[in-house]
Amino acid sequence: MKTAVIAGQGRLPAALAAAMTEAPLVAAMDGFAPEGLTVDLTFRVERLVPFLRALERDGVGQVVFAGAVTRPRLDPALLDEGTAGLLPRLMQAMAAGDDATLRAVIGIFEEFGFAVVGVETIAPALLPGAGVLAGTVSARDEADADRAAAIVTALGAVDVGQGAVVAQGLCLGVEALPGTDVLLAQVAGIGALRPDPARGRGVFYKAAKPGQDRRIDLPTIGPDTLRAAAVAGLGGIAFEAGSVICLDLSEMQRLARDLGLFLWARG
Amino acid sequence: MKTAVIAGQGRLPAALAAAMTEAPLVAAMDGFAPEGLTVDLTFRVERLVPFLRALERDGVGQVVFAGAVTRPRLDPALLDEGTAGLLPRLMQAMAAGDDATLRAVIGIFEEFGFAVVGVETIAPALLPGAGVLAGTVSARDEADADRAAAIVTALGAVDVGQGAVVAQGLCLGVEALPGTDVLLAQVAGIGALRPDPARGRGVFYKAAKPGQDRRIDLPTIGPDTLRAAAVAGLGGIAFEAGSVICLDLSEMQRLARDLGLFLWARG
Repeated sequence: MKTAVIAGQGRLPAALAAAMTEAPLVAAMDGFAPEGLTVDLTFRVERLVPFLRALERDGVGQVVFAGAVTRPRLDPALLDEGTAGLLPRLMQAMAAGDDATLRAVIGIFEEFGFAVVGVETIAPALLPGAGVLAGTVSARDEADADRAAAIVTALGAVDVGQGAVVAQGLCLGVEALPGTDVLLAQVAGIGALRPDPARGRGVFYKAAKPGQDRRIDLPTIGPDTLRAAAVAGLGGIAFEAGSVICLDLSEMQRLARDLGLFLWARG
Repeated sequence: MKTAVIAGQGRLPAALAAAMTEAPLVAAMDGFAPEGLTVDLTFRVERLVPFLRALERDGVGQVVFAGAVTRPRLDPALLDEGTAGLLPRLMQAMAAGDDATLRAVIGIFEEFGFAVVGVETIAPALLPGAGVLAGTVSARDEADADRAAAIVTALGAVDVGQGAVVAQGLCLGVEALPGTDVLLAQVAGIGALRPDPARGRGVFYKAAKPGQDRRIDLPTIGPDTLRAAAVAGLGGIAFEAGSVICLDLSEMQRLARDLGLFLWARG
């Protein structure tokens, strides 16, 4: 059974394709080309039904969504009859937000007979299991990661974010809509408000939201996350084992050692 | 019964003294002078017991803590015998954090026979009850304040912060250790990541932590908070009625109208 990667922006689609045992068919939305990956099929939301028929003709049985897209503007002139019938449903979902849109799109793929699977099913190696992957984790770091994990769980329950920064038990920042890069840049900027780094530099912790659809939007970190954590003056990154996608793990391990950071898949 | 205000930095001690029916005795820690308020008595932690005796001699029966202090460095040469006996307890609390320190200090005041009361007991007018105090609150604003209140409650349960910013249901930021000013500056800086302001500019919401000791660290807002909310592009400020200190409410109401913001004590 052939697999199609519905690729959004960023490095994840290429990392995913590289981790798969058989080369997938790569499809991308018009205007959202993935990095470092050749696109076999470009589609537009206005012509979703013809695109689904094309996947079927190509022998695709399952699809995986990978990488970010933003909600596109729709051009009514491009609509075919089949997609026009789906439009009220899609428009309603788009008004309700990104998650709702993706859920609606997944529903439509499933109604057309495709299995929609997650990155963890297709390429489990991208989500490291429990273990210290680089550096050393002190008792202070463990305590900070415990506290951060409790904070992220509380935030997830109100559907806020997937990350938090804790140093010496103090919460220096929490991930909200702006995301990881903004959070780490904010922590880098708080200066004298942070506790004495000599007693513990602090941890960035990342986890999936409890109860989230694991086929979409699993948290992703990569070499850039490590660089940002170093700029923020942290001691390392901890994440929920088995639930966080690591882009280029061996590069991340090398970089963590170079930067003097730990990288810990917390079980 | 005479009241002593143990004044920290900022404008709260002066606002509190002005709101009291009888002029209090004003005491301040060496190096932490309040703004716009004459200090009757300066004290150092190393000489806490002689300070408590002096309050007693002056006929003080109850004390209220108001305004911020940071944990001071202690000079052992200044210690008197009585305070030296309290030192192990104070040092242990100081190592455990600001809240623990303040709780230990409150305990010592109580053991010396003083009643420790909160701002809400001495000057309830500083904590507005439910009502719209300036501007108008739309249904969108109400929904955003509801969502922000749920987030702040969840954060309070893990002892993180007292505030959050929500626009169109999306959480743009959460208050952690760095505090309100940093949160609002961060929201001002996220630029294109925020949703279209034409559909709802968003709300900064502030509340007490559930279960916090209401004699210390009740959340405080003032004219500067409104100015920062305006710079952050928000539609207004909502707060938990009866639990948030408003510094100079009439000035805040005037300013809110000038800035086109609402100010809402949410019941």
